[in-house]
Amino acid sequence: MASPCENVELFVDGELAPEDAESFRQHLPDCMRCQREVADLMQLRLLSRRHAEFAEAEPPRAPVPLFRRRPFMLGVAALAAALLVMVGVRLLRPSAPSHDVWLAQRPQRLLEARLGHPGADIHRPLAAKMMGGGGPLEDLPFDALAWLEREDAHGLAAAFLVRDDPGLADQALRKLEKLRRSPELDNDRAVALLLKGRPDEALRLLDAVLREHPRHAQALWNRALALRELGLSLMAARTFSEVTALREPGWSEEARQKAEALRRTTFERRDRWMAAFQSGLALLEAPPAILPEGFSQLPIARLFFYNAIRAAPNRERVLELLPLARELDARAGNGVLEGYVRRVAEADFSRRAPLARHYAAHVREHPPREEQERIIKALLQSREDDILLGSLATWDASTRHLELYTAKAAATGDLWFQLHAAQERAKAELAAGDTERAIRTLLDARKLCPARGMEYRCLFLERDLSHLYNQRYMAEAALAHAKKGWSDARAANEWNLEGDLLWMLSQVSRIVNDASLTRAYLGEYLERGRGNPVDEHRVHQHLASMAFQELRVDEARREMDAALATGLPLTSAGALVLADISRLKRAPGDEAHLKRALDAARPSLSAGGRAVATHILGRFYIEQDAGRGRDLLWRAIQEAEVPGLEEDSLARRARAYSYTSLLHDAGRRGDFKEALELFSRERGLKPPGQCLLAISADSERTLLLALSPSGELLGHFDESRRHPLPERLDGVVPEKLLAVLRGCSRVEVLARPPLHGRAGLLPPELAWSYLTRTTPPPAQRTGPAVHLVVSDVAVELSPDSPLKRLNAWTPGFGPDEQRVTLSGTEATPHRVLAAMKDATEIDLVTHGIISGHANTSFLLLAPGPEGAELRVPQVRGASLRGAPFVVLAACHAAHTAYSFDSPFSLPVSFIEAGARGVLAATVEIPDLEAESFFNAVRERIRSGAPPAIALRDERVRWLGQKQGAAWLESVLLFE
Amino acid sequence: MASPCENVELFVDGELAPEDAESFRQHLPDCMRCQREVADLMQLRLLSRRHAEFAEAEPPRAPVPLFRRRPFMLGVAALAAALLVMVGVRLLRPSAPSHDVWLAQRPQRLLEARLGHPGADIHRPLAAKMMGGGGPLEDLPFDALAWLEREDAHGLAAAFLVRDDPGLADQALRKLEKLRRSPELDNDRAVALLLKGRPDEALRLLDAVLREHPRHAQALWNRALALRELGLSLMAARTFSEVTALREPGWSEEARQKAEALRRTTFERRDRWMAAFQSGLALLEAPPAILPEGFSQLPIARLFFYNAIRAAPNRERVLELLPLARELDARAGNGVLEGYVRRVAEADFSRRAPLARHYAAHVREHPPREEQERIIKALLQSREDDILLGSLATWDASTRHLELYTAKAAATGDLWFQLHAAQERAKAELAAGDTERAIRTLLDARKLCPARGMEYRCLFLERDLSHLYNQRYMAEAALAHAKKGWSDARAANEWNLEGDLLWMLSQVSRIVNDASLTRAYLGEYLERGRGNPVDEHRVHQHLASMAFQELRVDEARREMDAALATGLPLTSAGALVLADISRLKRAPGDEAHLKRALDAARPSLSAGGRAVATHILGRFYIEQDAGRGRDLLWRAIQEAEVPGLEEDSLARRARAYSYTSLLHDAGRRGDFKEALELFSRERGLKPPGQCLLAISADSERTLLLALSPSGELLGHFDESRRHPLPERLDGVVPEKLLAVLRGCSRVEVLARPPLHGRAGLLPPELAWSYLTRTTPPPAQRTGPAVHLVVSDVAVELSPDSPLKRLNAWTPGFGPDEQRVTLSGTEATPHRVLAAMKDATEIDLVTHGIISGHANTSFLLLAPGPEGAELRVPQVRGASLRGAPFVVLAACHAAHTAYSFDSPFSLPVSFIEAGARGVLAATVEIPDLEAESFFNAVRERIRSGAPPAIALRDERVRWLGQKQGAAWLESVLLFE
Repeated sequence: MASPCENVELFVDGELAPEDAESFRQHLPDCMRCQREVADLMQLRLLSRRHAEFAEAEPPRAPVPLFRRRPFMLGVAALAAALLVMVGVRLLRPSAPSHDVWLAQRPQRLLEARLGHPGADIHRPLAAKMMGGGGPLEDLPFDALAWLEREDAHGLAAAFLVRDDPGLADQALRKLEKLRRSPELDNDRAVALLLKGRPDEALRLLDAVLREHPRHAQALWNRALALRELGLSLMAARTFSEVTALREPGWSEEARQKAEALRRTTFERRDRWMAAFQSGLALLEAPPAILPEGFSQLPIARLFFYNAIRAAPNRERVLELLPLARELDARAGNGVLEGYVRRVAEADFSRRAPLARHYAAHVREHPPREEQERIIKALLQSREDDILLGSLATWDASTRHLELYTAKAAATGDLWFQLHAAQERAKAELAAGDTERAIRTLLDARKLCPARGMEYRCLFLERDLSHLYNQRYMAEAALAHAKKGWSDARAANEWNLEGDLLWMLSQVSRIVNDASLTRAYLGEYLERGRGNPVDEHRVHQHLASMAFQELRVDEARREMDAALATGLPLTSAGALVLADISRLKRAPGDEAHLKRALDAARPSLSAGGRAVATHILGRFYIEQDAGRGRDLLWRAIQEAEVPGLEEDSLARRARAYSYTSLLHDAGRRGDFKEALELFSRERGLKPPGQCLLAISADSERTLLLALSPSGELLGHFDESRRHPLPERLDGVVPEKLLAVLRGCSRVEVLARPPLHGRAGLLPPELAWSYLTRTTPPPAQRTGPAVHLVVSDVAVELSPDSPLKRLNAWTPGFGPDEQRVTLSGTEATPHRVLAAMKDATEIDLVTHGIISGHANTSFLLLAPGPEGAELRVPQVRGASLRGAPFVVLAACHAAHTAYSFDSPFSLPVSFIEAGARGVLAATVEIPDLEAESFFNAVRERIRSGAPPAIALRDERVRWLGQKQGAAWLESVLLFE
Repeated sequence: MASPCENVELFVDGELAPEDAESFRQHLPDCMRCQREVADLMQLRLLSRRHAEFAEAEPPRAPVPLFRRRPFMLGVAALAAALLVMVGVRLLRPSAPSHDVWLAQRPQRLLEARLGHPGADIHRPLAAKMMGGGGPLEDLPFDALAWLEREDAHGLAAAFLVRDDPGLADQALRKLEKLRRSPELDNDRAVALLLKGRPDEALRLLDAVLREHPRHAQALWNRALALRELGLSLMAARTFSEVTALREPGWSEEARQKAEALRRTTFERRDRWMAAFQSGLALLEAPPAILPEGFSQLPIARLFFYNAIRAAPNRERVLELLPLARELDARAGNGVLEGYVRRVAEADFSRRAPLARHYAAHVREHPPREEQERIIKALLQSREDDILLGSLATWDASTRHLELYTAKAAATGDLWFQLHAAQERAKAELAAGDTERAIRTLLDARKLCPARGMEYRCLFLERDLSHLYNQRYMAEAALAHAKKGWSDARAANEWNLEGDLLWMLSQVSRIVNDASLTRAYLGEYLERGRGNPVDEHRVHQHLASMAFQELRVDEARREMDAALATGLPLTSAGALVLADISRLKRAPGDEAHLKRALDAARPSLSAGGRAVATHILGRFYIEQDAGRGRDLLWRAIQEAEVPGLEEDSLARRARAYSYTSLLHDAGRRGDFKEALELFSRERGLKPPGQCLLAISADSERTLLLALSPSGELLGHFDESRRHPLPERLDGVVPEKLLAVLRGCSRVEVLARPPLHGRAGLLPPELAWSYLTRTTPPPAQRTGPAVHLVVSDVAVELSPDSPLKRLNAWTPGFGPDEQRVTLSGTEATPHRVLAAMKDATEIDLVTHGIISGHANTSFLLLAPGPEGAELRVPQVRGASLRGAPFVVLAACHAAHTAYSFDSPFSLPVSFIEAGARGVLAATVEIPDLEAESFFNAVRERIRSGAPPAIALRDERVRWLGQKQGAAWLESVLLFE
């Protein structure tokens, strides 16, 4: 007989005679080779069976019989008793996994958040946490996970999440992404984001769930957690209380305790501050014995100390303040205040006492302007400089007498006054319209922070910097200062400034269009200021504006009415929203409210602000008295175009918004010729006479114009939209217009913000580009091409960042190009900017990142002393003398921030700095593919193709070869 | 007939008659309840079977039959044809998982690193990376993972790692931790650490593997990656070249390319710097036409510019430098240098030219001191202040004429000189022994950095700060400055300073005892300076010292001989090591080398340095001429104890090391009485006369003394150790001594560094504490107890940190205690320090973290303007007037940094600041358990138990109830 090994196949197929099968079985244990072959063969058999089965199409969510997935065991079963097993197993699908996958049987839960999956949402107290390291991880039960993957994909994600392991959050997210949306799934996505330390994104998801299902217990709970992580304790407490109200066993009580603790600690902080504040005020008259314990730990204490010394009527009172001076000096680590006390104690109180008394009186009630000037003169003649300084500061007279204040402040040798003088200087500079200079002044002063004992002054610097950056739409910088200030204010329990900084945070999230976060900040602000009409008034106006922006007109009307109900006149911004709301849901008093608001605001308006006021009226009236409205809007444009206002953000807004109103008015009238003329006038540069697509959108309205190859004009206007436009614009251009544009060899797109720079506007087979430049194109420099390639950048990858080290990049140089490369640790923003100056072709190859908080993208370069990020403001400030064509080979480089007056993105900033064209993608792109794609486009351009056509041809080639991924269509050209 | 559901059990057990079974089968599909019960019952049957089987002990790694692990399927199989299956399945264990778990069949690999698991180490090119986000994750094949978990745990870890997903690295580490150590497993642990962004820890593991297996391909490859991540390109290249030499297909070529690219970019940088440096030097005589492209981008360019202007012999040469001045001004963003050029151009060159010529000559060759003074006087009389400044700086005369230099520097209005003057001032302050003041001076100057154009000066500040902090053993701060400086130097390509900062990095890792990292830094330094005897000399001395510290005596000898081979005299530090090496492996020339080193060093030694020199001689001679050695050691102690040297780190070292030598000498002689006397003298405070354990260890030597309850002295000395002592000291005290100590109600332990503060020294049933105080105990304040509890701290948890939010903490106050709490955002280091001042009981409850880079632990508090970390130096600087008993409820709070002269830890710093006792753990502790444990210990102390006994009693109670985890034994008491 031959070797038993030859019987393997027969054995597996059950075709061996019984005695042969038995002898083979006897042989098997000693023969590794046969064992191996039996296994392989069974796998093969199974595989072919499975393929056959899969060929019969089955509905994707139908229960998949267990046996189909278990090749080995099924093989065995088949071998043994196929029929019986077929019947038996098919029905034996268990209705739950075999293992405690959701750790539901443990007495304590690991995850603080709540999951939407019912198997994983069982209340138990929280487990102990390690007071340092991360603690041991939980074992993953793979068999059970495999079961879940087949039977309960949501449960699989939940199994990852219950382990409270941030490392598994991505796995969970990935599973959840593949499932259809539901409140429970979105809730669990939010939990994954919480685990990943991204409470703001979690909040967005949860708010969406709660908008549809306001009593969704898990979403409410997690929203409270997200709010708590964001530091918004009162909003978190409020949300926990909503959970308590649902009366679920366990959860309800835990939520109650959490809400109670959050409120207690927050209000306890407030009460301590209030008490100190009141006693600080009282110090003007009373001796320091009244001060509460720990008074000197509050940053504002130093302010009250100065006031008390200035107001002290005699030597004794001054000396009573010596212990406080010493405490404050100890905080600051010097002896400045003790010296001050001793000097004042030596003063001649026969002369000083009346001045001190006046001072005390005038702190509470400011005298009229002329009286102030008289007193200042008198104080100048006396030698009581400290009272002079105090009077100037208290009456806000320090900006009027800036040089005097600065000199006297410097003479004190006290950092406090130096910092305050800088703050006042910045205020004066801002009033003179020089925001940039004001920012520099504050930044210079801020170099002296942190300074012990000066926390109060440093907080003001953060607040004012945040405000100024916000006005300039520099959200990233505004946010950094607001956050730093807020954190420092909370650390020092400087309650009032904490509120100011909270407000700044809401304003930053407002300009980056993060509705959820803005509502959360505003909500917290409101909770802190409950019952204060001024706070309620400003908050509700903002909420109205946000609701309108999302086209939730009823909600906007409600919020607006709440603001009006406080009886206070609207701000300009509020009036602007009212004009909009009034278009879609008018109320009888709107006109009166509008006028009252503008009348109240007018005296204090700057030139730019006046243009905005005119615009608001125009925007309101054009809906009822079109001629009057149009006149007002044109006047607003005139007012905004007055020389000197080029950089004034209010004037720019007034101009852009007025054109918006006029454009859509023309569109509604079907006067597309006038609309085209308006596009042209606004841009200040005549657009091409053919193959043009012009587009504008405003709230519910969309206006599109197309010029055919022969210059024929087609238009389209619509005002029925009730949802904001999506990020990608596929399908926005109606077929009628597309048909006209298909005849063009290339199309130029004039897109007004916020549409400029979005992908998908035109189909991939068209060659098109965004018309970005608003000035005539720069003359390209003659001489040889200088091609700069920045690649292989030594980026610092922190372990928590998902970024990977990129593959080496092979630059694609042309034969006649002068080659310049910059790479490694030297490719810092500073060096890159310097190297770009004279290049005619630039490839920047590195990671591109959307900064979620600022809704802008930046390039990550090698870290230099001033950071590693190349951002819009730096590029804008560059001067690209070689009028380069720029390729941004990086993810998201074309991402455009949400803004209504001018587009804000890297490509736009390159064009502003002098680039003749920019190629960039709005989404993520892979490096190896990007290398071939962009180098091929470059090669086509070098061979003479216009960039738009080079891009289209290469794109079509890739799509044809099916190499193409979604990212191909999001590579955009800006010219 | 009853309901078919009653037949479930019979059906499962196969005891149903055929027709009943068939009818049950018909019933099954429609009955959820029966399906469920069938499944449950089968599981039950299986489970009982499995337990029975497990009872037969089987070798842990023997192949586990597949069927034992698959409850359901086996149930089915058993049901179907038990016998056949039993035989068939048992043998059917497949030899590989059913799925491509290691992604080995893909054309590209995701992971750059190499794995020790053979299935996962197949060469393919690297896959594309997303140029922004993280890119899609790979699906986890759970079935296959389940198989791996049973059959191939190493393969399971590898399956996690090949996916290049940092989120899975912890899972992989966890699996690997459970396996026995092997080179392959350690390699894969290192890969996980690389994924987690911890190249330094990866390096440590890989070095250990390579020490045993120097040609381990995967470990070599990964070591190269770790080195590259650390920025050590030449060492990385060298290591990649070692991989190339192994000639593995694919890997060898990729390694070659990587090595080549690393070398090319590094040497290209060096060459560019060298060229610029040479031309900068030449600028003293030649016109600026010689300068290479981009010269002004180098930070050092400004230095050469000043020199060139000072040395310019006429107006024309000065004006030729105008374009360079403008370029440098453009970098700095001002017009300082252009103004300087124009001023000098107006000078009277009939007077200036000779001075300029002198200057040019003296830059290259410094004149003797007297000549310098003469020239300085002459320059003072001329009005050529710039040449005066330059001369002072170039000749290092600026510290001698500090006030003059400072004044003239300030007069230039040029930040460059202001920064340089600060650097020189710090140098003078250091020379005067005031390190603290020097640090302040540098920190103040550093506030002006980063300053564009001043990078060169700012780099010096970082370098000098790192050096000073390092001298003060403040590794964390030293590291921060070295890293910042190194990164900035690399960004600016300031090659020479980059080397200086690399050296500083090696020195920091040296003092924190990170041998792997130190070797890597020193290696890179050596690669950069190949062929330079000065560099080789200093590197080999350090390597010798490190090898000896690890008790690798042969290696230490080899490195020492390499250092000596350069022919240069050893430094003091080198001589100290030679004295040690010589004890265990003497060479004939040692005495001569030692004397030569000390003679060479002596002229420039400070008082502390002289004490060290005396000590070195003593340490050397005591091994051959004990009397002479002892005399020298006592002299060293005298020299170190001279008043004024209390804070001098060299003097402290000389004193501590001398006692070490004397102690172990006494121990070797068996004179334990003298040893006890030495312990007492060193401490300066008489230790208790009974129930004392004293311990000292030095390299290979250990000395232990025990005093019995009756004061009887027992000793133990050993010099046979050939491995450094482990972190835990279990078993170090011999039973003979333990027996004596068991009679004590409590034991006080006098442990010299580096043993002070380690866990496990005495068994848990003894009541013991570390005797930490070196001054008489503070008188406890009378009056009511003030109990401060800092808990529920609003710690900032970054998403990449493993830390979790702690559970709420319930403070345990005594009935008569005045309660003070601090929590939330206000629990900042500053506020905590302030609140501790007057407390008599302090509980600090928060996360404790070991900073791996500095080998010290700190407490994480709420972020204040000056950070969130409470570290040793801050605590040391505090004044705890209430002589509090302190409980540090945090992980690792008792962790003690490695140091030979004085223990460096949080508990020690609290004792130094005035605490009467400190309770803290060396390892991780869970919060809920910590709460009950520490509050119970507090309660026992309040009831009158001495802390050591309170701690022991509670510990024993917990251990008795088996609640106790390992952490219980690592809670230590310091008194």
